[in-house]
Amino acid sequence: MFFPVVIIVTFLRLLGSAEPTPPAKGVLRVYGMKFCPYVQRLKLVLAAKGVAHETININLLSKPKWYFTKNPMGKVPTIEIDDVVIYESDIVSEYVDAVYPGRKLCTTNALKSAKEKMFLVYWGNNCVVNYYKYARELKNNDQEAKDAFCALVKEGLEKTATFLENNGTPYICGSQPGLTDYLLYPHLERINAIVPVDLKQIPRVKAYFDAMQEDEAVKSCRFSNELHLEFIKKYVTGDVGAYDIGPVAE
Amino acid sequence: MFFPVVIIVTFLRLLGSAEPTPPAKGVLRVYGMKFCPYVQRLKLVLAAKGVAHETININLLSKPKWYFTKNPMGKVPTIEIDDVVIYESDIVSEYVDAVYPGRKLCTTNALKSAKEKMFLVYWGNNCVVNYYKYARELKNNDQEAKDAFCALVKEGLEKTATFLENNGTPYICGSQPGLTDYLLYPHLERINAIVPVDLKQIPRVKAYFDAMQEDEAVKSCRFSNELHLEFIKKYVTGDVGAYDIGPVAE
Repeated sequence: MFFPVVIIVTFLRLLGSAEPTPPAKGVLRVYGMKFCPYVQRLKLVLAAKGVAHETININLLSKPKWYFTKNPMGKVPTIEIDDVVIYESDIVSEYVDAVYPGRKLCTTNALKSAKEKMFLVYWGNNCVVNYYKYARELKNNDQEAKDAFCALVKEGLEKTATFLENNGTPYICGSQPGLTDYLLYPHLERINAIVPVDLKQIPRVKAYFDAMQEDEAVKSCRFSNELHLEFIKKYVTGDVGAYDIGPVAE
Repeated sequence: MFFPVVIIVTFLRLLGSAEPTPPAKGVLRVYGMKFCPYVQRLKLVLAAKGVAHETININLLSKPKWYFTKNPMGKVPTIEIDDVVIYESDIVSEYVDAVYPGRKLCTTNALKSAKEKMFLVYWGNNCVVNYYKYARELKNNDQEAKDAFCALVKEGLEKTATFLENNGTPYICGSQPGLTDYLLYPHLERINAIVPVDLKQIPRVKAYFDAMQEDEAVKSCRFSNELHLEFIKKYVTGDVGAYDIGPVAE
């Protein structure tokens, strides 16, 4: 069952502007950045659980000073509700899953949970790291390096296929997407958009990606391949306007 | 209540030797390294819960090939029991806490758990990172760099004092040490032994460290300051014999 999400997007085109007033009592605020995969993790979790929230986007290439009073590391996402401030995408996502109603996304079986977490570490160290290395080459444009990083991403996706096959369920978390699926998906969306790996060559990952595309939470939070490519090309050149491309509210 | 721990230490002085036979049915095996703080995390958890286990130590400066079949990243700790293999110190520790009897170490309150996890991220990015930078200077011996890293560690410990004060309990997890305490403690032990920060100048951290020293799990897993210093001096110079110093069974 899917709970419709009410998202009030307060997108700060006036970057570096004054600190916003605190959120109204009981209102969950997300400090994010439209194209950040770590923010998308949280947005997917909020969408899957049907949690209403408002969003203030931070320009990560020109961070306003006040933001460091919310998150001393200046990273996104951060959530704020009443006197509670929490950051780090996995920690926030787990917190949101624990305290809000809606279907529970966390895997409760200890062994399955451990295997999912171990796989997320692998995914981060391989697919994600090599995706970013590839993305940086969109600026340097060293074809040899691009090919090498693309090959490493492909190798990581093949290991992902093996993990999914061993799992024996359509999604990592089971018969429907769970927390681990939502933590993994944002970089898969970007890899599919930006790295020239043909997912059809890795059928199990293609099937997984296609299934995720049908998920209502994913539908409400995904970006087009074209927008991802436009953003990343601006981002790697340090263009502070990168965050303002595309529609204001997504 | 403290459960006595039976630890069978199979310390491999013959490094790079043949793959050991699998653990006997139902026996929990830890692949570790005597002085590794991430292994000590798990040892503390096992001790606090009174979980019997055997240990095979891996020489991290000369890893045997067979070890990569247990943990593809070649890191420690890894646990093996029957057909289950799990690695990454936090994941293994959570798993052990979930599946073994004994007192539960994980913090269950969602907000408190999130705050503890956020603090562990801070601790890792500040105290731990700067501890290692300081330790590496034991080889290079650049006094200016040593002073700078020492000052950063001290700053991190002051933030730790503030966190503990806000917490309002003797330990991070409450009235007795819990999982977060055991995940944090190993680097605090090393900082106290190796970095010239006088904990007396940071009374809240000193009180915390002293209280941890009285914990039975800590007593069973700690190393002397002298052994830490001897190990780290050998380790930073790449001495493969570093892992064999001290008594065989600790």
